Amino acid sequence: MSRLVPVGVLGGSGYTGLEVLRVLRGHDGVEVRFSTSDSEAGKPTPMPGLSFIPVAQARLEEIEVAFLCLPHGEAAAWVDKNGKSVPKIVDLTADHRPGSGRESEAVYGLPEVNPAEVAKARLIANPGCYPTGVIMSLLPLQKAGVIDDAHPIMVSAASGVTGAGRAPKRELLFGEVFGDYRPYGLGNDHRHLKEMRATLPGLQLLFVPHLLPVARGILETIALPVRAGVDAARVKALWKNAYGDRGAVRVIDGAPSLADVSGNDLLVLGAFDNVGLATPTVTVVAALDNLGKGAAGQAVQNMNLMLGYESGRGIRC
Amino acid sequence: MSRLVPVGVLGGSGYTGLEVLRVLRGHDGVEVRFSTSDSEAGKPTPMPGLSFIPVAQARLEEIEVAFLCLPHGEAAAWVDKNGKSVPKIVDLTADHRPGSGRESEAVYGLPEVNPAEVAKARLIANPGCYPTGVIMSLLPLQKAGVIDDAHPIMVSAASGVTGAGRAPKRELLFGEVFGDYRPYGLGNDHRHLKEMRATLPGLQLLFVPHLLPVARGILETIALPVRAGVDAARVKALWKNAYGDRGAVRVIDGAPSLADVSGNDLLVLGAFDNVGLATPTVTVVAALDNLGKGAAGQAVQNMNLMLGYESGRGIRC
Amino acid sequence: MSRLVPVGVLGGSGYTGLEVLRVLRGHDGVEVRFSTSDSEAGKPTPMPGLSFIPVAQARLEEIEVAFLCLPHGEAAAWVDKNGKSVPKIVDLTADHRPGSGRESEAVYGLPEVNPAEVAKARLIANPGCYPTGVIMSLLPLQKAGVIDDAHPIMVSAASGVTGAGRAPKRELLFGEVFGDYRPYGLGNDHRHLKEMRATLPGLQLLFVPHLLPVARGILETIALPVRAGVDAARVKALWKNAYGDRGAVRVIDGAPSLADVSGNDLLVLGAFDNVGLATPTVTVVAALDNLGKGAAGQAVQNMNLMLGYESGRGIRC
Amino acid sequence: MSRLVPVGVLGGSGYTGLEVLRVLRGHDGVEVRFSTSDSEAGKPTPMPGLSFIPVAQARLEEIEVAFLCLPHGEAAAWVDKNGKSVPKIVDLTADHRPGSGRESEAVYGLPEVNPAEVAKARLIANPGCYPTGVIMSLLPLQKAGVIDDAHPIMVSAASGVTGAGRAPKRELLFGEVFGDYRPYGLGNDHRHLKEMRATLPGLQLLFVPHLLPVARGILETIALPVRAGVDAARVKALWKNAYGDRGAVRVIDGAPSLADVSGNDLLVLGAFDNVGLATPTVTVVAALDNLGKGAAGQAVQNMNLMLGYESGRGIRC
Repeated sequence: MSRLVPVGVLGGSGYTGLEVLRVLRGHDGVEVRFSTSDSEAGKPTPMPGLSFIPVAQARLEEIEVAFLCLPHGEAAAWVDKNGKSVPKIVDLTADHRPGSGRESEAVYGLPEVNPAEVAKARLIANPGCYPTGVIMSLLPLQKAGVIDDAHPIMVSAASGVTGAGRAPKRELLFGEVFGDYRPYGLGNDHRHLKEMRATLPGLQLLFVPHLLPVARGILETIALPVRAGVDAARVKALWKNAYGDRGAVRVIDGAPSLADVSGNDLLVLGAFDNVGLATPTVTVVAALDNLGKGAAGQAVQNMNLMLGYESGRGIRC
Repeated sequence: MSRLVPVGVLGGSGYTGLEVLRVLRGHDGVEVRFSTSDSEAGKPTPMPGLSFIPVAQARLEEIEVAFLCLPHGEAAAWVDKNGKSVPKIVDLTADHRPGSGRESEAVYGLPEVNPAEVAKARLIANPGCYPTGVIMSLLPLQKAGVIDDAHPIMVSAASGVTGAGRAPKRELLFGEVFGDYRPYGLGNDHRHLKEMRATLPGLQLLFVPHLLPVARGILETIALPVRAGVDAARVKALWKNAYGDRGAVRVIDGAPSLADVSGNDLLVLGAFDNVGLATPTVTVVAALDNLGKGAAGQAVQNMNLMLGYESGRGIRC
Repeated sequence: MSRLVPVGVLGGSGYTGLEVLRVLRGHDGVEVRFSTSDSEAGKPTPMPGLSFIPVAQARLEEIEVAFLCLPHGEAAAWVDKNGKSVPKIVDLTADHRPGSGRESEAVYGLPEVNPAEVAKARLIANPGCYPTGVIMSLLPLQKAGVIDDAHPIMVSAASGVTGAGRAPKRELLFGEVFGDYRPYGLGNDHRHLKEMRATLPGLQLLFVPHLLPVARGILETIALPVRAGVDAARVKALWKNAYGDRGAVRVIDGAPSLADVSGNDLLVLGAFDNVGLATPTVTVVAALDNLGKGAAGQAVQNMNLMLGYESGRGIRC
Repeated sequence: MSRLVPVGVLGGSGYTGLEVLRVLRGHDGVEVRFSTSDSEAGKPTPMPGLSFIPVAQARLEEIEVAFLCLPHGEAAAWVDKNGKSVPKIVDLTADHRPGSGRESEAVYGLPEVNPAEVAKARLIANPGCYPTGVIMSLLPLQKAGVIDDAHPIMVSAASGVTGAGRAPKRELLFGEVFGDYRPYGLGNDHRHLKEMRATLPGLQLLFVPHLLPVARGILETIALPVRAGVDAARVKALWKNAYGDRGAVRVIDGAPSLADVSGNDLLVLGAFDNVGLATPTVTVVAALDNLGKGAAGQAVQNMNLMLGYESGRGIRC
């Protein structure tokens, strides 16, 4: 039996922190030493035998990897104060992502895209849930020059409610969301766009998120204008070439759905030819769990690479 | 008290037929003489005191208006056989809609668009649920010349499950749909596209429907490329000018949602300016209940016009 | 056209207040002069043309009936301060219900049970949602002496989430409730028991509520030990005799369900004989909407009686 | 690495069969050789790399354990024809359960109750989902003599929709179940009662199941009359004594909920003292996933015992 690497979770009682604990529960290469939560201190975590502790009691010197699942904004402050106490950090907040102003301090960690960089990083900016699907769908296509960037690219995205966090707000109450479905962030200025634009420069992304009455999962449907002669088969070949069979990406022939990804750490991609349009387009569909590949699953993949493990170790698929 | 016009519902035990009965229950100008359903004969309808009767027992000579809520394909046959027995017919199936091959026999009934034609019609082709939202969103804009038709127009649509009908199918079971969300009809050849294209010729419509885990309601989010200088305010002004305050259309400033339309007969429209795109676009959002304005509500509006009533009489708003 | 009685809603932006406004919207004998909400002041109410006003701006002298939809505890204070300014008051909170300590100041208003008392009342304590179903199920049976009170009577109740109010709490978030179902208030000391025990003295009520993952509706299933010779037919006859066809009670032969009552103001009752038990029992099932007959619908029935209207006027059924 | 025992799943495309495959996917002691489904032949199973085969192609001679996930009624016929071809059989249908008339041919397999018998069995009747919760809750209490059997014992049960199977029926459509909640099987003659009565003779069980608008999970709330002096603490001690920490039973202090068991193979039990009743009662709450401990999880536990493995091997907890 190899050594278990000691890790800690900062801010473990939000949806993201809870999910990191659930993924790590099935990981045979690490040991969770603590999970902090001031509000839930003393209560059980999803990890058998482990209770939440107040953040002030976290013994940072004992861990080799810290997962930051704090509210957006608090992770940067935590890194400023404690960054040197822990050898490796995966920040699941937006604080170090492209467009945050602090992106130069961290490696933006897409395990299937830049694994070598991730492996050498000390601080990982774990990508946002929506951007993960969009960037991984479009990046290999943009690199291959198959996208026609003269047209807007509509990304119609829908997310389960846990994507909005666990802090109590009226608009997230069951009584408000049940039976409803609505767009939000209209106007193309969602905070996740900075991250997408920084990674996919030059594309006319029109991003419209919707709140879906389910607990978890993201589906993104993209109307993609393509160069003449490019079809869905070519799109799928480019994905397979970029991502192979490693990691957490699956390219399928049917239509991806939330049922394919709910509760696991996969990103499922599909592409479809369209008829009846003068402008050639391919419809791209990406499905991922906002808490899985969109957060905790990808965070653990990044940790794996930083520890020299295979990136898919312990991942739910 | 004015005379109650006698009407009948053919095929009343599907979701559409049930909803026609529910709307008519609150209508003070008609009297439902019968509702047919061979499979449910003898069982109560939503109309107090009225039970379903076998179709063979329908006394067509007693009614002045027939609502056809039959399976798609059977309405055409019914009209061929019985069309002369009933003075006025509202066909809620696809059998006489644009693109059906029989559209010349009927008036395509959009009460806010062509009320005078509807008023004189003997046979109404009641528009489909998805097309109602798309056509009423885009028709006044196309007429005004504000749409830039050089680009694809993505219509990302999501519908509650009753839109797929009440016949038992595995993929519509609660156990399959709960917690899921998925696109379908990929490839841009959904049967409703014929109806949209016939009514909005020249636009590059890319229509992607999704199955939403709610019972009822449709939301359509449209990435609309527009001519330079056109903005959301202009779009809303064009709608208000076309539809006024009459009928079932509401133009709002916030984001339309299913909660605005679930269980009523309204079409709620919103428009939003986008930032960060080289191509000017406006995001259009249309919400309607697939069983309300998308079926039964619109059918009753059409009936109202044919009977000389105000189009909004008895409509739920 | 008869005179429209001016009424006001105090605390109109909670689920109960919103529902009172929705019921009154369909009522042709009253006019809503105002609805207060400090947090939502200026925003639209469900009543077309009416916006919320701050409570301080409510002109009590203009109204003849006040609906109190305040947080529990605040209605008593309101009555102490303003009770003499408004001729008739319907308090939808628990503040004047049996067991509250202030029950002597009000009439406990069950329109089908004590209509004459209600008609003469100045202050109505509108019954709680759970107690309405239990009391109306059991009261006529207890009076007729058909219940065997030597055994516990289990009331297994399930309520939609709006029953817990609209104040944001973590345990009511969509992400927490979706896919879940759980009992609460275990130990037989739910606050609604006081109200049931005061009205049904001598019965061994064991009340277990559950939180149901739907927005609205209550279903109560009661294992009722009965005297020898008593059966479901007798139970139904007693209900019909007590409630007649007036009001909001429906006795049906099939199994009541949430679908029968969701969004309307009915109480639907069913009774079923059981086999295989030494102790004679009848299973009683009561369904009502917690916001309808369990709150706003019953409040409007009470108002109707106080105003000399028929109790069912404007009620959704 | 020890040998992988070859197993097969007969009828793998229903909810139960799919779940057996999902559990076995995480089991490191067996190898699934085939899963049959005539209707889904050629399509992928949840087991990576395995597709469904027609039942006629199943090579029974290759497997050591067969899981029967056939429609109720077909398992008995299968055993009559093929029972001697496979050394060990776990029948997940009702065909060999107590009360079926064929119970003498099989061992009723409750791994925490009769593990020695299960270990020696050739044919296991895997318990029903509802009976598992009721029997495991009450059996140790009945044996200890703490139940007062002079009173009816109401079992108010609620199940997710997958408990009703995957064959398409109108009443199980999403459009019918969404937002609804209803009792069924009223009259105390549900087919599962035979199984409960045979295992818990002498108790006056009044069993009322309800259909819950979730995909999976069962919660059973039991009003249990107890002997004088018996309380919840004693009930919990009896459970812990009977089940220990082995297997799939967890006794908790809080209220069990579907969220505790959805997607895993646990049975979670809670007990609560009641106030205000002349007859001493304890409220018992049992939660389990109808597809987990209520079907596939328990089936794999039984298989484990038959193969000499630890009963909890591969179980999701």
